[in-house]
Amino acid sequence: MERDIFSNISPIDARYYKSSRELLERLSQYLSENSVIRYEALVEGALIGVMERRGIVARGAREQMKKALGSITPEEVYLEEEKTQHNIRALVNVLQRRVSPGVAPFIHLAATSEDITGTAHALRMRDAFYRVVMPEALSLLDVMLDIAEREAATAQIGRTHGQHAVPATVGFLFAGYADRFGLRLQKMIEAVDSLPGKMSGAVGAYNASSLIFDDPRKFEEEVLAELGLKPAAYATQIVEPEFLLDLIHGVVSAFGVLAQIADDMRHLQRTEIGELAERFEKGQVGSSTMPHKRNPINFEHVKSLWKEFCPRIITRYMDQISEHQRDLTNSASGRFIGEIIAAFTLAVNRLARQFKKLVVDRARLRANLELIQGAFLAEPLYILLAARGHADAHELVREVTLKAEKEKASIFELIREDGRFLEVVQLDSWKNLERGPEHYTGRAEERARAIASEWRLRSEALRRRCSEYREAEL
Amino acid sequence: MERDIFSNISPIDARYYKSSRELLERLSQYLSENSVIRYEALVEGALIGVMERRGIVARGAREQMKKALGSITPEEVYLEEEKTQHNIRALVNVLQRRVSPGVAPFIHLAATSEDITGTAHALRMRDAFYRVVMPEALSLLDVMLDIAEREAATAQIGRTHGQHAVPATVGFLFAGYADRFGLRLQKMIEAVDSLPGKMSGAVGAYNASSLIFDDPRKFEEEVLAELGLKPAAYATQIVEPEFLLDLIHGVVSAFGVLAQIADDMRHLQRTEIGELAERFEKGQVGSSTMPHKRNPINFEHVKSLWKEFCPRIITRYMDQISEHQRDLTNSASGRFIGEIIAAFTLAVNRLARQFKKLVVDRARLRANLELIQGAFLAEPLYILLAARGHADAHELVREVTLKAEKEKASIFELIREDGRFLEVVQLDSWKNLERGPEHYTGRAEERARAIASEWRLRSEALRRRCSEYREAEL
Amino acid sequence: MERDIFSNISPIDARYYKSSRELLERLSQYLSENSVIRYEALVEGALIGVMERRGIVARGAREQMKKALGSITPEEVYLEEEKTQHNIRALVNVLQRRVSPGVAPFIHLAATSEDITGTAHALRMRDAFYRVVMPEALSLLDVMLDIAEREAATAQIGRTHGQHAVPATVGFLFAGYADRFGLRLQKMIEAVDSLPGKMSGAVGAYNASSLIFDDPRKFEEEVLAELGLKPAAYATQIVEPEFLLDLIHGVVSAFGVLAQIADDMRHLQRTEIGELAERFEKGQVGSSTMPHKRNPINFEHVKSLWKEFCPRIITRYMDQISEHQRDLTNSASGRFIGEIIAAFTLAVNRLARQFKKLVVDRARLRANLELIQGAFLAEPLYILLAARGHADAHELVREVTLKAEKEKASIFELIREDGRFLEVVQLDSWKNLERGPEHYTGRAEERARAIASEWRLRSEALRRRCSEYREAEL
Amino acid sequence: MERDIFSNISPIDARYYKSSRELLERLSQYLSENSVIRYEALVEGALIGVMERRGIVARGAREQMKKALGSITPEEVYLEEEKTQHNIRALVNVLQRRVSPGVAPFIHLAATSEDITGTAHALRMRDAFYRVVMPEALSLLDVMLDIAEREAATAQIGRTHGQHAVPATVGFLFAGYADRFGLRLQKMIEAVDSLPGKMSGAVGAYNASSLIFDDPRKFEEEVLAELGLKPAAYATQIVEPEFLLDLIHGVVSAFGVLAQIADDMRHLQRTEIGELAERFEKGQVGSSTMPHKRNPINFEHVKSLWKEFCPRIITRYMDQISEHQRDLTNSASGRFIGEIIAAFTLAVNRLARQFKKLVVDRARLRANLELIQGAFLAEPLYILLAARGHADAHELVREVTLKAEKEKASIFELIREDGRFLEVVQLDSWKNLERGPEHYTGRAEERARAIASEWRLRSEALRRRCSEYREAEL
Repeated sequence: MERDIFSNISPIDARYYKSSRELLERLSQYLSENSVIRYEALVEGALIGVMERRGIVARGAREQMKKALGSITPEEVYLEEEKTQHNIRALVNVLQRRVSPGVAPFIHLAATSEDITGTAHALRMRDAFYRVVMPEALSLLDVMLDIAEREAATAQIGRTHGQHAVPATVGFLFAGYADRFGLRLQKMIEAVDSLPGKMSGAVGAYNASSLIFDDPRKFEEEVLAELGLKPAAYATQIVEPEFLLDLIHGVVSAFGVLAQIADDMRHLQRTEIGELAERFEKGQVGSSTMPHKRNPINFEHVKSLWKEFCPRIITRYMDQISEHQRDLTNSASGRFIGEIIAAFTLAVNRLARQFKKLVVDRARLRANLELIQGAFLAEPLYILLAARGHADAHELVREVTLKAEKEKASIFELIREDGRFLEVVQLDSWKNLERGPEHYTGRAEERARAIASEWRLRSEALRRRCSEYREAEL
Repeated sequence: MERDIFSNISPIDARYYKSSRELLERLSQYLSENSVIRYEALVEGALIGVMERRGIVARGAREQMKKALGSITPEEVYLEEEKTQHNIRALVNVLQRRVSPGVAPFIHLAATSEDITGTAHALRMRDAFYRVVMPEALSLLDVMLDIAEREAATAQIGRTHGQHAVPATVGFLFAGYADRFGLRLQKMIEAVDSLPGKMSGAVGAYNASSLIFDDPRKFEEEVLAELGLKPAAYATQIVEPEFLLDLIHGVVSAFGVLAQIADDMRHLQRTEIGELAERFEKGQVGSSTMPHKRNPINFEHVKSLWKEFCPRIITRYMDQISEHQRDLTNSASGRFIGEIIAAFTLAVNRLARQFKKLVVDRARLRANLELIQGAFLAEPLYILLAARGHADAHELVREVTLKAEKEKASIFELIREDGRFLEVVQLDSWKNLERGPEHYTGRAEERARAIASEWRLRSEALRRRCSEYREAEL
Repeated sequence: MERDIFSNISPIDARYYKSSRELLERLSQYLSENSVIRYEALVEGALIGVMERRGIVARGAREQMKKALGSITPEEVYLEEEKTQHNIRALVNVLQRRVSPGVAPFIHLAATSEDITGTAHALRMRDAFYRVVMPEALSLLDVMLDIAEREAATAQIGRTHGQHAVPATVGFLFAGYADRFGLRLQKMIEAVDSLPGKMSGAVGAYNASSLIFDDPRKFEEEVLAELGLKPAAYATQIVEPEFLLDLIHGVVSAFGVLAQIADDMRHLQRTEIGELAERFEKGQVGSSTMPHKRNPINFEHVKSLWKEFCPRIITRYMDQISEHQRDLTNSASGRFIGEIIAAFTLAVNRLARQFKKLVVDRARLRANLELIQGAFLAEPLYILLAARGHADAHELVREVTLKAEKEKASIFELIREDGRFLEVVQLDSWKNLERGPEHYTGRAEERARAIASEWRLRSEALRRRCSEYREAEL
Repeated sequence: MERDIFSNISPIDARYYKSSRELLERLSQYLSENSVIRYEALVEGALIGVMERRGIVARGAREQMKKALGSITPEEVYLEEEKTQHNIRALVNVLQRRVSPGVAPFIHLAATSEDITGTAHALRMRDAFYRVVMPEALSLLDVMLDIAEREAATAQIGRTHGQHAVPATVGFLFAGYADRFGLRLQKMIEAVDSLPGKMSGAVGAYNASSLIFDDPRKFEEEVLAELGLKPAAYATQIVEPEFLLDLIHGVVSAFGVLAQIADDMRHLQRTEIGELAERFEKGQVGSSTMPHKRNPINFEHVKSLWKEFCPRIITRYMDQISEHQRDLTNSASGRFIGEIIAAFTLAVNRLARQFKKLVVDRARLRANLELIQGAFLAEPLYILLAARGHADAHELVREVTLKAEKEKASIFELIREDGRFLEVVQLDSWKNLERGPEHYTGRAEERARAIASEWRLRSEALRRRCSEYREAEL
């Protein structure tokens, strides 16, 4: 059923589809209504498969199902649903029409709808992550590692409270982003791998399957094993909601890392700061009336998407509650989970594209470092004094700082001239500092390199896992 | 640009589009990307219109614009945006190509992008509400008033803490729903009517328009008046965000009323209660494996949509913050507002459809009223005792209640036999109560009728406003 | 019952109590557990009062109640509650002990607990707002109006996307803050004035009071009138939750305005910007190791409080749902509302204190205006060209801007030398602009003054309302 | 500084302190302002300790610190903070006064405030969990396991959509609660154990400590090891926020499990259901006017606390963003984290107390099972038919169910009489079912026992970990 995308109401299906078509097509394979039906049919197929192996349904049943799966369309299932008012019953009816009369009654046998729906959902999530989300995320991770290494030694003033603090390096900053983001990816993969399926019937107690099998839990394990899944220890009509919640927590908290990055970039691109910036494309218009503008629109976009999607985690926490053996108030809401994953992947992808061409303005970095001439000396002076046992080190330094500020004098000179600092100014380490703020970056470069190199290994390991996953035939 | 709806990721553009196509098509006229561009062009048209009237642009300019508006397509604008990376500049370029060279330079003159975008947004919201949301909401209000009046005298046990309290009536319950929902509609209309437009330039200070007009604020008022809007006292690049926030607060809090209704209905349909229920359609399947099930799937759906959309209000509160004269981090997020309005309208519509055929099971209502035989007497006994100055009225009644419970005795008899209650049991009002719990409903019926009749008037007034709005040519 | 404040778990009762003791003591009169009991007793008093007037209870009853109210303590009520496990029953018992046996049975007669609790809550909220919150908020409003007027003409570069846009003035910025904040105060007052009480019994249908009065709704109105309140059209056991929700929406959205202000201030105090700043006190320590730091800790604090309290609005939306005639799941949560109001008032108070001594660095304002020399000319050049019918005005200006940037040339000169701009550079308005960016502030000063003067009037009106409220004896 | 608790504004410090004093006193040791200062001093002590071991400060320094730690009071530190406007500098000043002049300058040397604050926070969280939260949670887990085992075979109708589905057992229900809750506890412990400390200075790059040590990261590890902590790979001024976020996610999602349990209990206690209930205490008052009420006030309380605290997770996600090397907008908000933990522990404790005396009404359980006579047969009939290859099994059963409903006939008889079911009704498994719904509980009992016994082991292991933790001297 075709429709003009510009008539869609969700920006993901309209505006962002237009601008990120290829990526959204890939995600659509796991997050669309189409995929819902396809994966549910797959689970029904696995169910028949095990019944065939166990001799309950005639040989060839699974083969029939495979063909059936390939040919059903969402339209057909929806048409049937208009009659049944029940989506899984509709799917079963449609499948039954496509297999032989001897096989038809066995479709869905011993399963409740949620055995199919819940299991299919786990499968879709897993595929979406291993096939699209994770590869995209690793690309972003890698480009951040590139910057971390390339700019490991590029000094940059550190900022706390929006105020100049002491220097570190651009690479150190990006190593931190990579570390935070990478740790989130590991959380996500862990959560994805924990997603259980189920095949335990209407209230999770194997009531129906107990009538057919002596070992209904064993049967459940077999069906799920066909799909690469495991059951949890317990289920009601639905799988325990915490597994999925942990995954979405992983996504939303990873999104939070992107939001931090986007905010940092926005501010570092401020007119007054200008250290890092989005590349401004030829022909691009900054403003409809102010042609000189260079706006960080992509970083702003990422932050804005986070604002839209972060609060949606609350729905996930609400969906932990499903009265008794389940109510359906998590059904419609559950259908919107795909949007969170799509939006996150869009943000990841956009950030990666920007970072590949990130503008690093070395002149501005240097100029900012020297903006408050010598202010960076306050901390080392205090440290070196205190380390020598000076009683009022902090107060002393506060004094000389205020004096420099008041008299607009060079703090270097004030320190050099003040007898109380004699012991310090003769130190080699002090002389090194006098060469400039870029010589007071601590272990920023070393740490940037160490963190980046650790994450290179982990990134490759994750990438390998994704490849292996894709290669393993379902 | 056509696409299979089943490839969409948002349920609103796929699953719910399939099942509520007609309604979503109507909403799409105001909430889709298509409508965004159409309304923005409309604002550019009004701008030219006033310039023509003021003699700044040649006569006939507005007429040219009208034709241009009618022929542009989103595809074209998006294609242009690929070059400009700026959506309003793209629109302006496309419009300029369609008018004469004498008119072209005046398109968008003195406006900043947000003058167009923000004003168009206010217009779309207003049209969406007056043309679709409000009429749908009034239909729901009316059907609730129908039930309030029809069932004004139908006694129903009141429930507090899930425990039987004292009786009221079904009509009283629905009168309450109507009152709460109706008050929300009034809030919404108030908020819609307050939405301001703007035409005050890049930072809201009329910098650009001051160069052309001596009375830039007057000019702004004229342009907005063309569109039926007014400016607020102040704007930066964007209109003050609180006006829109109040509207969304109206929507989300009205949604909360629906959530309460849905929850009540779900519980009143419980197997053990069964007082009110969704009509179960012929051919409908309750469960894929439990054919006897009668599930309140529509009420569950409404509650579930609320769970999905209520937390999104947080994004609106976050979007109050737009650094300095504006940052763009409210742009992507702002595009998702249409989904909230669409989902609310879907829920309204679904509830109205269900209420039109609501099952009221009088036998179950009666049976439940009498479930704890005589328990409802506890309160009036206590009241009548206390009103006669009995010192320990509450304690006395507690005692007899516990006794009846313990001895499984009739509380009527225990009271009648207990000398301490003699004074009370001889009262006419007591004798009336002994006729049964339906005689202890206070002023439920009277209030149900009074509230319903008040809202009949208000509902008609609102409906009239909507009609007048639609009839007024823009 | 005394306890060391440093053992408290809530920062409001410990850290912030220490630093804002006087303000929190005032708020405590309406928001503490102590006040809960005091106001509930007050409602019981009003109930007796009307019964006395109607001749149901003996003369002098109200007088007895007044004395009783004055002498009860929370400890006593809590001790009683340990027995009853019911807070209102405990209060009633305690009150009954303090009045004559003839009056005792009439205490609480015909009321359900929520008649007392809900009504008392409305009273506490109203008093808190008129007596503390609103006066504090008006002080903040006034100091912002002071700045708006004082700095009405102080030019400041406008910033969109964090990039320099075109200039406005500091006063214009503060006029906008005042307008947004002031409008929120009006919303709040409107919501406060709408808070209803109730006296309609266990399920809102006047079951109990109908036994005693022929006109139970009239009786309700009388009792509430004693307290300056009105009933809503409908209630269940509880008042409709939307009235309180609107109030909290008012508070949280006003808090959002503070968050915007705090963010703006934080950024304007950045080392690289330095236009506005918190006054740094003598003796204050910026950092434990970096004595040169000047951190905007108060602005940061306000933003941080907003982050803590904004999401709590979700609880209020959740509390719209109270199953059937009420469940108790809004009880514990409802007790935390006081924290929101307290935190908002703390933030208001802190911001007012900072703004009274706000540092306005005129040199930095000027320096920043001239940071991108002449860039501000891009917009007016484009406007003046386009207004003269130039076809490619936007493109032309984009070109010259890029050229100036590339060649590091003066844009003034480039424009003056370029024949295509001849017509423009001869204009008086252009010559005016050449005098500097402070001459391109549009109507910023005029609007700042107009908005400020309008709000002076409204602020006084609001302040008068608060005084009148305080003076009216309850 | 003493204050009447009833003047406090937070219910945790007033109402709930009154009713859960002992528990809140224990929590206060780790969550109060008092504890904040105590733990921060502890970290300063560890720092001196390592410096003494490394020979930087004179021998005996740590001993001096130990004494100092024991004698400082919050009042003193707060008094000092009034001067410094900086809490850590105030603490350092207070400590310095208590040690010898030779030691004083070395206090806090090379540390930034957040090295102390962040590390102390991790320690407090860990202690709170191992010493109070986890032991309380394990008590709840254990009582749920008790019920799971005791009621493993107690049949109970399963409910989906609020409608009777097929039976399981009470023990199975509680096994599920235990499994979900237990898994959350494991997540929490994992998160607690991951909390890092830091000692890497103002921007995380070891700038200051590099001046004193050749191996600043090694030094950091040594200091943290003193406290049983480790550094993360990266820090800015603050530790990466995701570690704490994961912990709070653990708490809030565990709280969600409690909310589900509370909701289930509330509904199972409904007048019409009455299967499980809170024990009603002698003397307890159900309602101030309806003495017969038995309200699930404790279950309602737990749900209500969840409503209050769940949305606060949003603040934690917001606090992931701290601009550049940190802004302070996570400081005030971070102080409220203790409330979440306290409220969760209160809920855990209350639920455990209720479950210890949970009323299980076997008569009502049995009556409800038989409420829709024979309806439970629909599923097994369908299964057994389908398993025999019947083409229209689902439709056939739907038919007979509707017939039974319509004719108010016994479904047992209808089935027995209908030739189409002949094959099925002769099966042993069918005859077993005819004995009653309690014979169609699948593997509920078996699974309940298996899950309970697995969690017994895990619970003991967790308990052992807590004991070992407590025993290990810090």
